Amino acid sequence: MDKKTVGLSGTLKENTAPKSFNKNPIKGTKFTIAISSAKGGVGKSTFAMNFALALKSLNYKVGILDADIYGPSLPKMMNIKEKPKSEDGKSLAPIEQYGIQCMSIGFLVDEETPMIWRGPMVTSAIKTFTQKVLWNNLDFIVVDMPPGTGDTQLTFAQEIKVDGVIIVSTPQEIALLDVKRGIRMFDKLKVPILGLVDNMSFFEDDEGKKYNIFGEGGVEKVANKYSKKFLGKVPINIDLRTAADSGQPLFFSNPNHKISKIFSEIAKNIKQSFKT
Amino acid sequence: MDKKTVGLSGTLKENTAPKSFNKNPIKGTKFTIAISSAKGGVGKSTFAMNFALALKSLNYKVGILDADIYGPSLPKMMNIKEKPKSEDGKSLAPIEQYGIQCMSIGFLVDEETPMIWRGPMVTSAIKTFTQKVLWNNLDFIVVDMPPGTGDTQLTFAQEIKVDGVIIVSTPQEIALLDVKRGIRMFDKLKVPILGLVDNMSFFEDDEGKKYNIFGEGGVEKVANKYSKKFLGKVPINIDLRTAADSGQPLFFSNPNHKISKIFSEIAKNIKQSFKT
Repeated sequence: MDKKTVGLSGTLKENTAPKSFNKNPIKGTKFTIAISSAKGGVGKSTFAMNFALALKSLNYKVGILDADIYGPSLPKMMNIKEKPKSEDGKSLAPIEQYGIQCMSIGFLVDEETPMIWRGPMVTSAIKTFTQKVLWNNLDFIVVDMPPGTGDTQLTFAQEIKVDGVIIVSTPQEIALLDVKRGIRMFDKLKVPILGLVDNMSFFEDDEGKKYNIFGEGGVEKVANKYSKKFLGKVPINIDLRTAADSGQPLFFSNPNHKISKIFSEIAKNIKQSFKT
Repeated sequence: MDKKTVGLSGTLKENTAPKSFNKNPIKGTKFTIAISSAKGGVGKSTFAMNFALALKSLNYKVGILDADIYGPSLPKMMNIKEKPKSEDGKSLAPIEQYGIQCMSIGFLVDEETPMIWRGPMVTSAIKTFTQKVLWNNLDFIVVDMPPGTGDTQLTFAQEIKVDGVIIVSTPQEIALLDVKRGIRMFDKLKVPILGLVDNMSFFEDDEGKKYNIFGEGGVEKVANKYSKKFLGKVPINIDLRTAADSGQPLFFSNPNHKISKIFSEIAKNIKQSFKT
């Protein structure tokens, strides 16, 4: 049985309509892809770095914006120790490493300094990174988002033209809850979801035996339930972790590694969503 | 050679002194222990639930406050589906499960609803949970903190008497960076650090072979470097994860499991820091 809804008058409708925002692309970039997980610690940053390098290998100009103000990983994962230059005292030049233009709050503070900041300060930092960085003619900027559904996510969704988001998660049920919240948030904020990745999907021991440490198939199920694309599984892997810790992402140090090939496939898949 | 510092006049000193705050215990509780990680996804919530149950097994009255507004895990991990009652429309009664008093933002919203909130809303929710919940005569309240060093951490540090914090981390270098930031934050905010836990420390396959998936010994090294207590290692374990996903924490469903015994040891160790 259909439920009748009482109509709103035109004026009232206008007043209760969702606030609309002017969304601009990040200056100097063509497409913005956000890597999100809602939950932290699922390997999102490792994914972001390797994915960016995989996109670059398809002959795109790529940048990475580390939007995790509280826990920047980019400086360590990309082995960047220098400070960004500012010619005019207002803008910041990104730092190029492995052919990727990079920016992170971690470039501006000592690596062990906590950013003990309330939300508005975070918002202001994100605005600086999206408006004042001299990104140079990028096809893609990959944004490594922080966990949660708070200030950073809202600032991106409301003020920046985000062309798509990749949601990365482990298959653990408790993580999938956060994924569902993330999907709902992006749907609500009208940010297109490019697909879901099952990360730390399984562990393979030295004899080739597989262990589903975090459970099995959960991310794909959520993708199906919400009619989102499933982009594939990335196993939990010591080489991948070691490479991230060493400052040379696996895709850079060993592009022929079986895990690197998975990143290649995902990058090719994502590429199809864009007219470049 | 000593460096001479130029003295500040009395008035100037006063003006530049750190702002001081009135810190009150959470009403109805004796001691507050925060479980923190700075980084998400290191198993902090799983740790918090099992640790709280281990404390309870030492004959304390224990509560858990899930302070992760963006990614509440408590309702699922403790299998709580009911809504908290409010007799007077102002206060909230905690929900008791497995002998533990519990409160989470997840009790108040549908489990898949994202809290798309900016910082000040988060602060307000934390104040409600610490001031308006009718915690009943608890010896310990275990606070499951969100990742980061932002609004929630600042609100706790400035307004609540936190008696100690346990920092949980995986031994991965990139996670340890967040741990160092966390230590600095708590030291700066003068919150005592009870110790560090090396979580998801190693994986043991069916033949008993150990794999240091996330690296080895990192958490203990950081503990030593910063003169903090090292509380021990908790391996990455399928039983522990399955129990968390099922809504019956391992310490509750199988208190004699070898992993449960590790939680017991940590609880006994922590107990010694308190005169109860």
